[in-house]
Amino acid sequence: MDLVVALDIGGTLVKGAMVDREGNTLDDFKLGTLIGRGANDFVARLGSYINTLRKNAAAKGDRVLAIGMGVAGKILQKEGKIVFSPNLMPLNNYPLASELQKRTMLPVFMDNDANAFGIGERWKGAGREHENWLGITLGTGVGGVLILNGERWQGDDVGFVGEIGHTIVYPEGPLCNCGKRGCLEALSSATALTRGAKEAIEKGEKETELAEAYERNELNPILIADAAGRGDKLAVRLFERFGHGLGIAISNTFNLLGITTCIIGGGVSAAWPRFIDEVWKTLREVNSMVNFDQVVIKRASLGNRAAVLGAARLAWIELGKGH
Amino acid sequence: MDLVVALDIGGTLVKGAMVDREGNTLDDFKLGTLIGRGANDFVARLGSYINTLRKNAAAKGDRVLAIGMGVAGKILQKEGKIVFSPNLMPLNNYPLASELQKRTMLPVFMDNDANAFGIGERWKGAGREHENWLGITLGTGVGGVLILNGERWQGDDVGFVGEIGHTIVYPEGPLCNCGKRGCLEALSSATALTRGAKEAIEKGEKETELAEAYERNELNPILIADAAGRGDKLAVRLFERFGHGLGIAISNTFNLLGITTCIIGGGVSAAWPRFIDEVWKTLREVNSMVNFDQVVIKRASLGNRAAVLGAARLAWIELGKGH
Repeated sequence: MDLVVALDIGGTLVKGAMVDREGNTLDDFKLGTLIGRGANDFVARLGSYINTLRKNAAAKGDRVLAIGMGVAGKILQKEGKIVFSPNLMPLNNYPLASELQKRTMLPVFMDNDANAFGIGERWKGAGREHENWLGITLGTGVGGVLILNGERWQGDDVGFVGEIGHTIVYPEGPLCNCGKRGCLEALSSATALTRGAKEAIEKGEKETELAEAYERNELNPILIADAAGRGDKLAVRLFERFGHGLGIAISNTFNLLGITTCIIGGGVSAAWPRFIDEVWKTLREVNSMVNFDQVVIKRASLGNRAAVLGAARLAWIELGKGH
Repeated sequence: MDLVVALDIGGTLVKGAMVDREGNTLDDFKLGTLIGRGANDFVARLGSYINTLRKNAAAKGDRVLAIGMGVAGKILQKEGKIVFSPNLMPLNNYPLASELQKRTMLPVFMDNDANAFGIGERWKGAGREHENWLGITLGTGVGGVLILNGERWQGDDVGFVGEIGHTIVYPEGPLCNCGKRGCLEALSSATALTRGAKEAIEKGEKETELAEAYERNELNPILIADAAGRGDKLAVRLFERFGHGLGIAISNTFNLLGITTCIIGGGVSAAWPRFIDEVWKTLREVNSMVNFDQVVIKRASLGNRAAVLGAARLAWIELGKGH
């Protein structure tokens, strides 16, 4: 059987699997990223792990043909280089793809993690039946991906694409991690929820069950979602802002691209019932173009397997182009 | 010689030309749209004019192969139907393409006027050297078009695409003609300029040379641009708002699509020096993704010929697909 090694490289963990051409997954694995030890150490460990996988595969008569990987950060896809990844600083400007290729003698294909999410959901998940859609990942930050004509859109390969998290929805809104104001990420991410709660409590908002978690320095999106579910006013307001921001950004994307489908994943999408009504309400408030009967907004279906499957699919697609 | 008839259908005038495969233009013409006489009258006049053109062409040994047209409004491109055009109400839901086809026995290809602008500029204008770009037309309203992989992006063919004029840049901003708040069109169009001047003067702003034109009910974008050029505070402020809105919308599009090129046309683009500095300033303020060395923001180069040339190119492209 022919296989590829698929990797989802995050700041803490490398999630991986061996995946065949049809998307069947063998040998799931997780490795500590341990990026503090430096880029060379990281590539050496990863390379030797992959070489072992490959030997084991060969012993069973399987062939490993390539490595596909999704990496959080600004990626030059064609060059296989990370321009900037805040959680993988030692890999910035490091030629990760070519170094891993040297150690494994396998072709390496790399993309941004949100793109990998989109490719995965398009292949085996909620995007299977949709040719054109916006994908959003709600996590610490907000990632995005565009699937156009059935494939992930790569733009000019300038190191960013699908960055809906850094489209401005409120020009005078809260400060974003990127240093700008009013980005979607500043309203509709885990960071926006916990920071919003913290700021409100510090400004004197007392009647919230989140005050206790704040005192213990334990605010997190799950707590805030639970509190919103129980009607806690501050938590409800934070999720309204969250959904409102998403609604504006989705509306803008629909109007710009002439599309009507959005698929939402990422850890914070688990709080779906806390924000989806506000997304729809906002969309109806701000959008004069779409026929609402055609609009599809739905949850991604692969959970945290999306990026690994997308990395695998990326490798299969690129192999198919004759690399 | 093989030719197509190219039409730019506006509320007042139909501009047209006979165009060969290389984009050479013969027989420029203008007809009154006179849409008040109804759809059947319009198609009958247009059809008979085209049939005359065709006979004249045949007399010179030329063949007319198709009709291409750009129409202002919501268009179902594949069906050749206008869903909604505020300036061509009698044509709404009228099967314009098939009726014209019946009367001329020529295949008819139709697109939105902003798309035609984009196709034209891509073919023969400022977009020739750019594979991926956002096109914006600044007029009474704000139109938009996306050129992706060298071709105009059509989206899901749901009747709208490239509608950057109806992306929200200020959720609590001024009311737009579409009924929503804070659309780009409500900040960065001829309508936004004249309405903004009117409202400011009615609120008591006196120290503006626009007050006189307001009294005579003669406010228009050219007057406002001239006043801004002379440093009139109200006029300068209106153009700052204009450029600021554009800067946000362009930044959002760049981040979403991973592109760095924008080409701006339409009548109000003539006021370029009044707003372009503010566009750049805003882009630098709000965008954390792009490498500014790669950013290109430039004026369209075909003037009001863009849509006619685009309509011609549309016809040639579709003929090439074997229609």
